[in-house]
This record gives sequence, C-alpha cells and structure tokens, in this order.
Amino acid sequence: MSKQIYASDKIKQAVLERLKKLGERVVSDLERGAFPRLEIPARTTSNIVYDERLRQYVLGSRRMERTARNVRHLRPFAQLLWIAAFAKQLIQRGKTSTLRDTYYVAIGEGIDFEDQDESDELIMQLESILDFPREDFNIFPEERASIYGDLVIEYTVPGFRGKRIDLSAHPDGFAIGPALTTAEFVKCGAEQVFVIEKGAVFARFVEEGADKKYKAILIHTAGQSPRNCRKLIRRLHDELNLPIYVFTDADPWGVHIASVLIHGSALSAHIKEINVPDAVWAGVWPSDIRRYKLPSMKLSERDIKRIQELENDPRYQNDPWRREIKEFWKIKRKAELEAFSRYGLEFIVEEFLPERLAELQKR
Amino acid sequence: MSKQIYASDKIKQAVLERLKKLGERVVSDLERGAFPRLEIPARTTSNIVYDERLRQYVLGSRRMERTARNVRHLRPFAQLLWIAAFAKQLIQRGKTSTLRDTYYVAIGEGIDFEDQDESDELIMQLESILDFPREDFNIFPEERASIYGDLVIEYTVPGFRGKRIDLSAHPDGFAIGPALTTAEFVKCGAEQVFVIEKGAVFARFVEEGADKKYKAILIHTAGQSPRNCRKLIRRLHDELNLPIYVFTDADPWGVHIASVLIHGSALSAHIKEINVPDAVWAGVWPSDIRRYKLPSMKLSERDIKRIQELENDPRYQNDPWRREIKEFWKIKRKAELEAFSRYGLEFIVEEFLPERLAELQKR
Repeated sequence: MSKQIYASDKIKQAVLERLKKLGERVVSDLERGAFPRLEIPARTTSNIVYDERLRQYVLGSRRMERTARNVRHLRPFAQLLWIAAFAKQLIQRGKTSTLRDTYYVAIGEGIDFEDQDESDELIMQLESILDFPREDFNIFPEERASIYGDLVIEYTVPGFRGKRIDLSAHPDGFAIGPALTTAEFVKCGAEQVFVIEKGAVFARFVEEGADKKYKAILIHTAGQSPRNCRKLIRRLHDELNLPIYVFTDADPWGVHIASVLIHGSALSAHIKEINVPDAVWAGVWPSDIRRYKLPSMKLSERDIKRIQELENDPRYQNDPWRREIKEFWKIKRKAELEAFSRYGLEFIVEEFLPERLAELQKR
Repeated sequence: MSKQIYASDKIKQAVLERLKKLGERVVSDLERGAFPRLEIPARTTSNIVYDERLRQYVLGSRRMERTARNVRHLRPFAQLLWIAAFAKQLIQRGKTSTLRDTYYVAIGEGIDFEDQDESDELIMQLESILDFPREDFNIFPEERASIYGDLVIEYTVPGFRGKRIDLSAHPDGFAIGPALTTAEFVKCGAEQVFVIEKGAVFARFVEEGADKKYKAILIHTAGQSPRNCRKLIRRLHDELNLPIYVFTDADPWGVHIASVLIHGSALSAHIKEINVPDAVWAGVWPSDIRRYKLPSMKLSERDIKRIQELENDPRYQNDPWRREIKEFWKIKRKAELEAFSRYGLEFIVEEFLPERLAELQKR
C-alpha cells in the first residue's frame, strides 16, 4: 500500500474537518442548553445566480434556518445528522455507497425516511452545507460512463492504492466508477478530450483510431453524463490543460447533455466546479442536418415541448445555443450522431471531425 | 500483429463461407434464367419449440419462401442481399457496426428502408439463414455490460491482436464491447461467475472483495443483458467450465433478466447457444423478502400485468420460477438487491452470499 498523500486524500480530509465542525456546532448548542440550529443554503430556482468568475449557476445568499426548537424541523434535523454521521463512517472506513444504498442503510438503522426521495434530498442538503459534492464523501452514482485513451492513472482507493493502469490498454473502455474518479493522472500523451453521448459512436471513434489520429482521450457518457464523469472531465481540463469537445445527438436531449457539461445543471447549482465552462459543443448541430444532408426525423410533440423549455432557459440565450434552437424551429427535424454513417462508417472520424475541429479552432 | 488463428477467426471464416454460399445460390439461379429464391426459417411464436438437447427454445421446421418471382417479395429480397453484402464487408475489413449504424449506411447507399425496424428485421432474417448471431458478422449492441475478475484475456481484434490484459487490473470494471467479446481466455484463477443486474451491487461486490473471497468473476449486465454479454457468459461456462450464479431484483423485470440468461429470449429463438441452461438464479427471490425481512415496495399495476404474462410463459412452469411467482401473489410486494443494505453495506457479500451459495450447492 502506497503511503503517498494523494489529492483525493486531502479532499476527504477537508470533508472530515467540515463534518467535525458541523457536529461540534450541534454539540456545543446542546451543552449550553440551547436548541441546536443550522443554516442551510436555499436550493430553490429563485436562489440561483450566475457566477461570472466560475461561469456557472450557483446558489445565491439566501439561507433557511433549521432548528430543533421548531417541532416540525426536528425530524429533518435528525435525519440530516444521521446522513452526516454515515458520510463520516464511509470516509473513515474507505467504503463507498450510492443514493439508494444509503436509503436502505438508513431504513435498517431505524431512520424514518418516507422514501428514497427524502433521503436523496437530505444528502443534497449535506452537499450544500459542506460545499462538497457527495462523491467527496463517497456516495457515487450507479450509472457508469467509460473512458479510453493515452492516459496512465494511479489508483488511490483501498486495495489498489499506488497501482497504475494505462487507459489505452482496453479498446472497449474502462468503466468510470469510484476507483477511476479518485485516481491521479500520472502520464498523458493526449492533447484533447472527445466526450461522446452514444456508445456506438464511442466504439466508432476507437475503431477508426480517433484517439491516435487526434491525440484524444475518448469518454462515453452513456446519455446524460453521471456527475462523477462530469467531475473527471473537469479534472482532465484543469489538471492536464486539455480542451474538451462534446459530441451529442441533434435533438433537445442531446443539446442539453452538452449544455449541462458546459454550464452545469440546475439540480447541481449547489455544487461548484463539476462543469467545464471552456468545453465546446462540437456537434452534431441541428444546422448540420442541412449542411451535411443527414438522414433526420420529424421532431415529436415531446421534443417540441422540450425545445420550448430550453428556449426560456438562461443557459440558452447565446450562440451557438440560440442559433441552433432557431434552426430546430426552421427545419422541425432532429438527427443522431450515427447519421453520418450514411457516408460510410469512416466518415465521422475521417471527414466530419477534422472539418469541425478546424472550424472551431479558427474562431 | 499475432499470426495465431483464434477461435473467433474460425467463426468469421465459417460465416464468410455461408455468406458466399448464399450469394452463389442467387447467382446460379440468375445464370440459369430462374427467379432467385431463398428459404427463410419462420420466426413466429407458433414456430418456437423447446429443444431438449440444447435446453432452450429454438425455431421449428417451418420455413417461408422468399422469391424474386413474387413482386411483393422483391423489395425485402434485395434488402436482404444488401445486408448480406454489408456483413461480408464488415468481416473482410475487420470493422464493426451496430443495428442503427447499419440502417444509416443503408440509407446512404440508397437502400429503401422505411425505418430502422425494417433493417433490424432483415438483420435478424440473415441471422436465421446463416445460423449465426449478428455479433459473428460484426454487428454489435450499443449497450455495454462490464466485467471484473481474475481472468487474463488475449485480444483478437485489429490493432490489439495478441495483446493481453488482466481483468482484475481495474476495479470499476472493463466495458464488454467487440474487443472483449471476441477475446480468447488465457488464464483464469476464478472458479465461478456472479452475474449482477445492478451497478451499485456490482460495485459493492468489488468493494467487499467478493471476487477474492469466492474466487468469482463479476459481471454487471446493466439491466437486461446485452446479447454479446450473454454470449460471453456462455463462453465462460463452456470454455472454462465455470458455474454461473445470477443476481437480480425481486421484481418481474429482474426475474425475467435471470430467466432470459438461463432459457434464452423469444426474440432470439433463431439464435442458438447464447443462453446458459445450467446457470442458477441465486436471488434476490420474492421469498427472500419475508425470509430476510427486506424493505419492499407494493407491486404496481404494471408489475402485476407483467407477472401475469410471465405466469403464462412456458419458461416459468417449473421451480424456482413457479414457486417464486406464487410468492409474488401471496405478498404482492417487490424488493431490490440493494435492500440487503438494511443490515449494513457488508451484509450481502458477507452473510447473504455464503448462505445462498451453500443452499444452492446442497440441492
């Protein structure tokens, strides 16, 4: 076992410190005979503000009080303390959990949660109090994105601490779970990152050697990117200084996958820095449908409703977002990344990719 | 590049032979001035029979004729020949595709498919004519299962041919794509395989060291297992003689995931030997809900309708299936694999697993 102190160790240490302070505050209130109270950032849409420096939506200054003096606060107050105690145990024992597992452990210990929604909500409250995402107190998403490319990592998780693996050794991709999320980057031959919504297109990029031709790390988000994958992309950008290009379908769901990677999600506005403001949405754009004469489908009722929602979202007021949403209304059609295969399987990597990258780098 | 001939090379060679014969039959008909015709196994539920030797449902002897003499057959006949030609190209060029990519390539080459359903149907016809699953002519699922454990594989795909990797080197799991599906098994320290529906439980098994404690390869199916993952499980059983234990939720969807792995799916009755008749459904059983006092949820309307369907399915007429379906009706409740966490995160691996394995091995 390596005795080196990793960045992820320091983060866990910082989380433990904050958990300790949280507990001390409650204990000190109790010891001087006062009702314990906490201030919790208000996680409502009316309390979301755009942070120019971070270039993402964050919570504003509004806070709500939670106090044991109020009998209606008593239950969520106790639940929150249990979640905090569970988080502390996870870190100290080097274990991980999921939102769902946490709910079941709570049930087993007699904590009275109505359903998982309630325990999820309290985990998010703890995130906002600690100002750390739940992955930093070892609660990970069930979903798995995957990664492939010229990057050697060193694990920091128990049992694998200090071991290394070359992420170009398995062409089907390495699942991004707790071990990869907390790993150190040791050696990187790549110069950029391609983030891809679809598994088929990820496989296509590998098969056509896009990783070698463009010195790129390839990431498959499997739809909307799980949070730990978004954090990993952020780390690739911050720590290795790699530009990030995002490839999604030209439908409102694909567009929003790119937008969340770049601007952050409303649901995670209480968590900072898991988005990448400098990341670039590289296609397939609705305007590519006409430009490349792509096979396309009519927008469904559901698509249209979703595009209307996006139109009113503050994250969609600038180009390319505004321009491309206009294009949706003009053509009333959508297309998938795989649609480039109409020009043969190689086209997307050999023709579209260099064209698009050149265009984006010219701007 | 390794010059060794792998088992997967031989399979591709056999598929190429059959494709060649298919083409020769058509050409010879044309050369002697006859309308080309083909006989295609009828893929209807009324033509599905139980094969005692294979212990799975397979297609019966009914065939349908497709002949260029009939003007209504002309279009699907031509489409089928295009699919066959595309399959040949994929194998010869060492490329892979997906159902969707294949549809788009067809569109690009002016093949008149109404929608992807139509091209999918013709790919399945080609499977039934060739008697090989589409993975053997390089059309792979988009979905990715993953694998972890004491198994060294050797790749047979271009670019990686002859290279090896140890599947215990990355604890988050290796994605199961074209490269893993066609790899050779080189060295295996495991004595059994645990197939797991849920990502959270896969991560739990890794974290609690189930792979070492029980000398097990762990596979995460991510819901209903993709076909290439089912084939891989079959190969682990056939080539390495490993017993297979399947872990799913105790709801009709989980039960059916286990059943399809064991008995095969109706949709794939024209494809042989991607199921494992000897695999064992190890839990969580509906009867475990009472036995282990698991947190459970009421069956929904949709669950109940689905259980009624399963009840009438020939695959559900014997125990444990019949017994456990009765239990559903008795308790009207369902539970998830994660529900064992009510006894702490370690319980499923340290208590439930040895108990269940001992019980199953006693039978």
